[in-house]
Amino acid sequence: MSGDREIVTGRKKASAFVPGHVTAFFSVHRREDPLKTGSRGAGITLSKGVTVGVEPAGETRISLDGEGTEVRPVERVLDAMGVTARVRIDAELPIGAGFGVSGAAALGTALAANRAAECEYTENELIRTAHAGEVEAGTGLGDVVAQARGGVPIRLEPGAPEHGVLDGIAETAPVEYASFGDLSTSDVISGGTDRLSKAGEEALSALRERPTLPQMLALGREFARDADLLVPEVATTIEDVNEAGGEAAMAMLGRTVVALGSGLTDAGYDATACQIYPGCATLLEDAADR
Amino acid sequence: MSGDREIVTGRKKASAFVPGHVTAFFSVHRREDPLKTGSRGAGITLSKGVTVGVEPAGETRISLDGEGTEVRPVERVLDAMGVTARVRIDAELPIGAGFGVSGAAALGTALAANRAAECEYTENELIRTAHAGEVEAGTGLGDVVAQARGGVPIRLEPGAPEHGVLDGIAETAPVEYASFGDLSTSDVISGGTDRLSKAGEEALSALRERPTLPQMLALGREFARDADLLVPEVATTIEDVNEAGGEAAMAMLGRTVVALGSGLTDAGYDATACQIYPGCATLLEDAADR
Repeated sequence: MSGDREIVTGRKKASAFVPGHVTAFFSVHRREDPLKTGSRGAGITLSKGVTVGVEPAGETRISLDGEGTEVRPVERVLDAMGVTARVRIDAELPIGAGFGVSGAAALGTALAANRAAECEYTENELIRTAHAGEVEAGTGLGDVVAQARGGVPIRLEPGAPEHGVLDGIAETAPVEYASFGDLSTSDVISGGTDRLSKAGEEALSALRERPTLPQMLALGREFARDADLLVPEVATTIEDVNEAGGEAAMAMLGRTVVALGSGLTDAGYDATACQIYPGCATLLEDAADR
Repeated sequence: MSGDREIVTGRKKASAFVPGHVTAFFSVHRREDPLKTGSRGAGITLSKGVTVGVEPAGETRISLDGEGTEVRPVERVLDAMGVTARVRIDAELPIGAGFGVSGAAALGTALAANRAAECEYTENELIRTAHAGEVEAGTGLGDVVAQARGGVPIRLEPGAPEHGVLDGIAETAPVEYASFGDLSTSDVISGGTDRLSKAGEEALSALRERPTLPQMLALGREFARDADLLVPEVATTIEDVNEAGGEAAMAMLGRTVVALGSGLTDAGYDATACQIYPGCATLLEDAADR
């Protein structure tokens, strides 16, 4: 990109890592206040994620995997914080395929911009800003709060800190995923969601009865069917994993299958291996001195 | 230790890592319900911490750094979960010196026992169990919830999940500590705490005005003086770090000084270096297969 010389020097760079997040099932809860708007549901955060570098500059420019682009939730976060910056987003995960890359970009931007521009917001304030940016941009409802917690988050109540309530399944495991392309989150979550939300609420009740990883994936499979979100290649893959003795579910919302252990490889698929992410979204230590 | 042959075989081992936690200031809030009892305040979690391995067995036996011992909060956690087990606690930090080792042992036991004995509790339930065990044993009030969050936790409201409310300072940094011995937590928190709590509440208000790491340590220094908890070697060390241009505070409750960056080394002290822990208490991945 040209224009590097315009950057205001003498201010800090900072960067943050935010884990990917795959939702197994969810229900939609819209309120007037974006901080109270969100989803209930459950999912898995991944050791693969998104790294966001922020350097304050006279004018905001955003790159995603090296290409200049617009990322609405990121722009909303910067606007809310009163920061203009060069933002570099590097995603280890497919975009638009149900991995929460937009939420990760928003949260990573908030964390890194806060440090780089010395805004002195607290973690909860930054999560709130990123959640509101994502909700207002229409790109997601529950990824940001899940990514801020890490592990296997259960969204008990929708919304950002002060409103939302989280718990988690107390487990960790290796996981695999295979992705067959994108689905538009905003098309689904801006449309009629009554049927989807009913299925999501039922799945959440059942998970609270038995909060385990295999149960979450089984409920995710039921949810995808009941909410009529299954796409053919995903349905076939999930069946193949099940037949090979594994546990898998569709990532909401993407043409993506996530499986425990080596479930996809065992069923003969070309899959990417990672882990359930044991931590939470975080600033990167070395960034202070770059 | 003898008696290894009595262990019930065929059940899983599991282990968990819990970061150390150094409190800079706090106020005491006692209620009848241990889940509502706790402290407000702020502190730093450390990349050095406590690893707890749990293997279900016919009879509970606990070792701490290789020596058989009693650890009351750990026993309470196991009792509450209905688990008897061999528990192996390995602390990378000094014991009784303000690093939250007892809280870490309680939380690590809860996480690992849940996995090893397949109890299927959620994370919040396990944090509640560990918090209650620590409060009932009189060994701490706020370490468990802080260690479950990681980073630089601010305890806004006392108590375990469903009651307590946390935020965090959105920063990370290298830190150092030097320890000159122990102080009894139970002696301080079971005595008159009005003066201490008043100072702690004032510090928390001031931190919320300006939530930064240097501010937290400065408020910790004021708190230690106002609450009359400073011990001579700690006071001298903190002054020396300040004179060398660094930021340090006393660990509550221990004869321990914690400093940002290389503050203690710069002031000529023999210190241990670590990092602010970016994650939260977590199961260790490889433990499932040991």
